[in-house]
Amino acid sequence: AASPTEVVQPAARPLGVDGARAFILASPVLLPLVGTPLDAPSWRAKEVGDGNINFVYIIEGPLGAVCLKQALPFVRCVGDSWPLSQDRMRIEATVLARHGHLCPEHVPRTFQYLPKQSLLAMEFLAPPAAILRVRLVEGKTFPKLGKQVATYLAATLFHTSHLALPGAVFKEQVRQFTNPEMCALTEQVIFLEPFQGRAAGNNHWTTPYLDAEVDRLAKDTAAAAAALEAKRVFCGQPEALLHGDLHTGSLMVSDDRMWALDPEFAFVGPIGFDVAKILGNLIMALLAVPGLASQQGKEEEGSEEAKEIGQKENNQIDREKQATWLAECVVEIWEEFEAKFKALWTDSISNKTQGKDEDDKKDDKKEPALYPEALVCKQVEDGEEEKEILLETVQNAYLKRVFKDTVQFMGTVLIRRVIGIAHVQDMKTIQRDDVRSQCEAAAIRIGRKWLVQAKEEAEKGIRSIVKDAQDEAGKAKEAIRIILAK
Amino acid sequence: AASPTEVVQPAARPLGVDGARAFILASPVLLPLVGTPLDAPSWRAKEVGDGNINFVYIIEGPLGAVCLKQALPFVRCVGDSWPLSQDRMRIEATVLARHGHLCPEHVPRTFQYLPKQSLLAMEFLAPPAAILRVRLVEGKTFPKLGKQVATYLAATLFHTSHLALPGAVFKEQVRQFTNPEMCALTEQVIFLEPFQGRAAGNNHWTTPYLDAEVDRLAKDTAAAAAALEAKRVFCGQPEALLHGDLHTGSLMVSDDRMWALDPEFAFVGPIGFDVAKILGNLIMALLAVPGLASQQGKEEEGSEEAKEIGQKENNQIDREKQATWLAECVVEIWEEFEAKFKALWTDSISNKTQGKDEDDKKDDKKEPALYPEALVCKQVEDGEEEKEILLETVQNAYLKRVFKDTVQFMGTVLIRRVIGIAHVQDMKTIQRDDVRSQCEAAAIRIGRKWLVQAKEEAEKGIRSIVKDAQDEAGKAKEAIRIILAK
Repeated sequence: AASPTEVVQPAARPLGVDGARAFILASPVLLPLVGTPLDAPSWRAKEVGDGNINFVYIIEGPLGAVCLKQALPFVRCVGDSWPLSQDRMRIEATVLARHGHLCPEHVPRTFQYLPKQSLLAMEFLAPPAAILRVRLVEGKTFPKLGKQVATYLAATLFHTSHLALPGAVFKEQVRQFTNPEMCALTEQVIFLEPFQGRAAGNNHWTTPYLDAEVDRLAKDTAAAAAALEAKRVFCGQPEALLHGDLHTGSLMVSDDRMWALDPEFAFVGPIGFDVAKILGNLIMALLAVPGLASQQGKEEEGSEEAKEIGQKENNQIDREKQATWLAECVVEIWEEFEAKFKALWTDSISNKTQGKDEDDKKDDKKEPALYPEALVCKQVEDGEEEKEILLETVQNAYLKRVFKDTVQFMGTVLIRRVIGIAHVQDMKTIQRDDVRSQCEAAAIRIGRKWLVQAKEEAEKGIRSIVKDAQDEAGKAKEAIRIILAK
Repeated sequence: AASPTEVVQPAARPLGVDGARAFILASPVLLPLVGTPLDAPSWRAKEVGDGNINFVYIIEGPLGAVCLKQALPFVRCVGDSWPLSQDRMRIEATVLARHGHLCPEHVPRTFQYLPKQSLLAMEFLAPPAAILRVRLVEGKTFPKLGKQVATYLAATLFHTSHLALPGAVFKEQVRQFTNPEMCALTEQVIFLEPFQGRAAGNNHWTTPYLDAEVDRLAKDTAAAAAALEAKRVFCGQPEALLHGDLHTGSLMVSDDRMWALDPEFAFVGPIGFDVAKILGNLIMALLAVPGLASQQGKEEEGSEEAKEIGQKENNQIDREKQATWLAECVVEIWEEFEAKFKALWTDSISNKTQGKDEDDKKDDKKEPALYPEALVCKQVEDGEEEKEILLETVQNAYLKRVFKDTVQFMGTVLIRRVIGIAHVQDMKTIQRDDVRSQCEAAAIRIGRKWLVQAKEEAEKGIRSIVKDAQDEAGKAKEAIRIILAK
């Protein structure tokens, strides 16, 4: 049998399905997960891609399936004219292992990482597990999603944060997950280009309907300044080891479970960024509902089923139900995240101050986390109450700031998904330009408001934020009704 | 002749004056700065110490003098019971070289750094150059100091900031200057212990006069929460390569010149911290004036000179003049720093957008600094005016935040210098406990105000900040007058 190093050339070329098959066959770790040398000829191997950057192979045999992810030193869909460091696979492998340890129920398992080949073997999540965004476009709802996402966010973010880790350990984590190239990519496509209008070649939008909005935004000093402020926070506020790209295309879901994939953009950054990516993308789904709902009956107009009485109305009701669930889900994610994050924080302090002997306490004093329990609990001798006041004060101030960051980042997410390089399937599935642009204009309006007035909007709370999005969706719905009535 | 490696044992022991002499003699780089082997027996070598952490030797020969600084793996004044990484000497050597390149007129030259021996050979700043704090206690004024400090701060901080450096370079700088042990020391003695009252063994204060203030502060939830917020910014906001310990004991001055020494606490952190350390220590000098002035005549009471008519009054006037100068100096440092920092920023953008060919521009696009000129200048085609509006908006927001950080850090500086492990000579020189405690109480009052209400106080501007300090000094003066009248 060929050895892995013989199969994979050091040159920058994809493994290919045959290479993937041979790689599994030669690996004593992976082979038993898939099958035996005897049944190897019958294995199914296919290439599935993953968001246009890497190569992903699924190899399935009688014993199971394994997913092989390969990073080449360039962006897959562009080719070697857009080079990209293979170090991203080290980041992804390490973060999956680390986050998987902290939150095993929501992170896929990794089996093996080969730095030389930039190859990662990991758990294959079989159907009916599917990408959340795909399911959302289909109109599905996932009642457990809110709690699952909140659990994932709280566990991965708190335990890798400066609130949990001793200072020196946290600093080492910052060094280890310095991810300059992937961060630069994020900075470019989220905080810069969308505010450069026609001057940025990567930008595209539903033209001519959004031309005026795009041009206005390109001259909008307040929006540009706010985007630069958001960029400053993104680049300069290391709080926890983020996933870094937590949109609805990075989550897989089944009715019961949720997994976060593809943390190749991971770095130690502001907690609000991870929260904003998932909330912002759910809001995008919410804003796409009026457009998707408007074509739902139409798509199936010619079919027998659509001709049954009430069919169109029935479809309509499902989308309405989805929109309501999406709004509730956004509220639930923030509220549950906030509660769980605070609870983990409080627990970590109780754990440190209780049931330890003097030696342990001395160790803690040497290497305190950001807010040492010694200070947060300094009034412990004066009774529990005062201790809780200081901890509560500190926690509330911290999470208030995280929410402000979240709202501001959400603003950039909404805008960039309409104007920037990468749009979302939710909107792209709306076929008519004039209809889609109504949903997209809503995203720009509300995105700008959150971006520029993040502090004021955040003060009003998550329910007000979501209400605003629902109102904008309502306006888009009415505008679409008028368009279609013509 | 002995080679340096033979002279210096790898074991953790001080070089000693003879070792220092032998080291110079054996170094082809350093020998010509001091003398020749023939005159070596006549060299003067002495150990001078430097703030209790390291060993410092001055070796002087017919050709000149060299300063040798040696870091042992523990705190000098405590001994090996308080270990401290020798990596601090690498940090100091590298930062002096880097800052010296950016601001040669205010940073001493380094000649040689030997990592194995944790030994740094550097320029000896001969008398009349002296430590600023010592001169301030003597009542001296330095009319050029404000501009010099502002120049140093603007040059070293801007050019090492995320505003000037490409993202990846800045991230590498963060890694290179990760200084966990020295940062942990700062965090402990500035942000934590002073708010723990009697519970922190390192704390000491003028007892019994300040007992009530110290106890009150130890129960002060708002102050503790604000100190933790300041710590969060200190630990988690990498903006520029700081000096890290820029108090008046780290500056040497002559009538015409100023040098910043001892950057062993350097790390990439919030710009406001460097600014606050020097401003806060100048404010401490200002608050010490009423106490120092009150004993000035007295000290020399027995001397012939003091008996001359008007001598006491004359001394008094000098201290008043110094207090006025100190207040003006604080205002000047901030205002000049702000202006110079903005000017460097504006220049850096003009340099990047003008007089470059297309290839250069492409390079810039690949590796932008925090606020890429492409965006800040995106309206350049619409005329200079709009471009300036965005740049001005961004600059004003940035420096407003830096000033808020500065005010908050100044608050912690004032408090810790009265309650914490390391007090200042300015106050210690005030002999009577009852008199000194009046000046120190003023520092606690104003420090707490700046710490807790940093945002509101910063809004009022630097002149209001300084006015408050002058008012507190006035109150202390009146209280001291009453005490001495008894």
